[in-house]
Amino acid sequence: MRLSLLCLIPVVAGFQPMPLNRLALSTMMATKPATEEAMSVQKIVNDNLPSEEDTLAERDGSMRVKMEQMLREAQISITKAIEEIDGGAKFREDAWERNTGGGGKSRVLANGKVWEKAGVNLSVVHGTMPQEALKAATERGATRSNNGEEVPFFACGLSCVMHPHNPHCPTMHFNYRYFETEGGEHWWFGGGTDITPSYIDEDDMKHFHGTYKEVCDRHDPEYYNKFKKWADEYFLIQHRGERRGMGGIFFDDLNDRDPEEIFEFCKDAANHVVPAYGPIIEKHKNDAYTEEQKQWQQLRRGRYVEFNLVYDRGTIFGLKTNGRTESILMSLPETASWLYDHQPEAGTPEAEFLDAARNPREWV
Amino acid sequence: MRLSLLCLIPVVAGFQPMPLNRLALSTMMATKPATEEAMSVQKIVNDNLPSEEDTLAERDGSMRVKMEQMLREAQISITKAIEEIDGGAKFREDAWERNTGGGGKSRVLANGKVWEKAGVNLSVVHGTMPQEALKAATERGATRSNNGEEVPFFACGLSCVMHPHNPHCPTMHFNYRYFETEGGEHWWFGGGTDITPSYIDEDDMKHFHGTYKEVCDRHDPEYYNKFKKWADEYFLIQHRGERRGMGGIFFDDLNDRDPEEIFEFCKDAANHVVPAYGPIIEKHKNDAYTEEQKQWQQLRRGRYVEFNLVYDRGTIFGLKTNGRTESILMSLPETASWLYDHQPEAGTPEAEFLDAARNPREWV
Repeated sequence: MRLSLLCLIPVVAGFQPMPLNRLALSTMMATKPATEEAMSVQKIVNDNLPSEEDTLAERDGSMRVKMEQMLREAQISITKAIEEIDGGAKFREDAWERNTGGGGKSRVLANGKVWEKAGVNLSVVHGTMPQEALKAATERGATRSNNGEEVPFFACGLSCVMHPHNPHCPTMHFNYRYFETEGGEHWWFGGGTDITPSYIDEDDMKHFHGTYKEVCDRHDPEYYNKFKKWADEYFLIQHRGERRGMGGIFFDDLNDRDPEEIFEFCKDAANHVVPAYGPIIEKHKNDAYTEEQKQWQQLRRGRYVEFNLVYDRGTIFGLKTNGRTESILMSLPETASWLYDHQPEAGTPEAEFLDAARNPREWV
Repeated sequence: MRLSLLCLIPVVAGFQPMPLNRLALSTMMATKPATEEAMSVQKIVNDNLPSEEDTLAERDGSMRVKMEQMLREAQISITKAIEEIDGGAKFREDAWERNTGGGGKSRVLANGKVWEKAGVNLSVVHGTMPQEALKAATERGATRSNNGEEVPFFACGLSCVMHPHNPHCPTMHFNYRYFETEGGEHWWFGGGTDITPSYIDEDDMKHFHGTYKEVCDRHDPEYYNKFKKWADEYFLIQHRGERRGMGGIFFDDLNDRDPEEIFEFCKDAANHVVPAYGPIIEKHKNDAYTEEQKQWQQLRRGRYVEFNLVYDRGTIFGLKTNGRTESILMSLPETASWLYDHQPEAGTPEAEFLDAARNPREWV
């Protein structure tokens, strides 16, 4: 089996930096170069050259290839839309590869008009992973154990965090991913999109959650409630007793139906990142704010860092298995702050935020 | 056995806030009130009232009482010296207690003339701890296992982090602690003092390491080399391949000789925090600096956060066992920053720093 050029969540062990043009200017044939974007995607797909045991024809219809292509298209369309909303900075793309199989493309926008830092990271990897890694990668991973032996796997994922300057513009995170153990014995999808404002605007929350409820409802009427609750549980900063933000949807280990159906759901969810998030940013990007509001945002950024470094499965796993640190920690804000024992006064918007972070609300 | 008012490293499960004056205005007799400081210490010692099974006479000579008193005196003398160097802000003291036994006193200085944030946390706790906790608390803790049962313990510790504003003034951390399992079956000391500048000043490093080499040499000619190396290993940010700073001394699980001897070493080390660190701050506190130097300091602060939240044993254990979050995370800087893939240019002082963080040097 031969697979190249790819990416997982930040869960990536043993990478080597790779010159940008090695991927961008790949000499692989692009059979249907319609637009520049389509061409890039095609090149990536074609980079997965068939070997003797593994012909392109066989693999074209595989979930691996479909998911990788969908994620790459989402990376391109989302970063394009974000650049348009930002109106200032452009994404920089770094391609990298893993020593042990696969690689990725990180797109990072820094110091934009709207965003302080925004990163969208595609990774497509394969190799073998320790049991511990399998466990860390899933909600109930221990059940997928294999008598302690290393597990051959393929994984692809697109993960993103965007931190705006303005404290009235929320941070947004999403991640969609597909795992498969060799031979397809085990496979599952995971993902979600969640929002982290510093101040609560109820209309914004209704819009964001409402958009994802509609996405969910198109695929399963039980998805939204289940995945909204899952996000509220997952994004808990346990030592604070508060969530990092106002949630969204989160799911893992999803493999209870035809993979094609789950793929369509992931695609729909990834394609609604911009409709769910973009209008909120457009609405607030020119809002006036005070120094106190900026300081409160910085404290919330501190909480974001705490969640990501102490609890986030992908981050911790990635860091502890020699993942590409810069791609993993792309998720951290450019600036964050901690004050000793800071308590917002009762009745303030900051206290209102904390209340909602401690007691998750139903927005739709 | 009855012990009250205490504190461990931040390793403290199940606390309740406690009004300051409950401790400060304790009505316990102070038999030898010489100075205000001595009085405070005396009050704390006397708070450990004898019960029927445990008379004060018996306990006066115990290592528990000696260590607690030494640490409380160090907390008082160090915070007093730091206030004098700062010349602006004063430490605020919060007393707190654990539901399950003991408590602590956190002293925090915020927004001083010299220090952005400085915290010195005394904790003296007792109760039972899970095996996992025992393991997390020691370098080779697994060997102290007890067939999976909860372990009754006593622990006291003084821990401190100080982050100055000026990028030419280093951050400093120390921690000295004593653990004992019930009945004194197992006991050990741990601790160390380490320094984290943003720029290397060789004379400063010689002074800091030299001071601790002298302290070590007074107790064992092998201590400095051993504990300097241990610090270089412990403070490694593994996913970066770099240390958070320029080290110092670090030791854990120390119980290879008469506890009185180790106690004297810890006392000497705690009492040399100010002589090791103070002159460096006095020398640099009025240094001019550029915005670029401040930004570099902020990136190093980001690394400090990464180390503390991802690797520091006391922090992670404390957070995951319902320790008092504000006392644990007192160690985080007020501000920190992350830039994607930041690489200092070769030949700059920033690149020089990184080289020394990657390849620990011998300073004395």
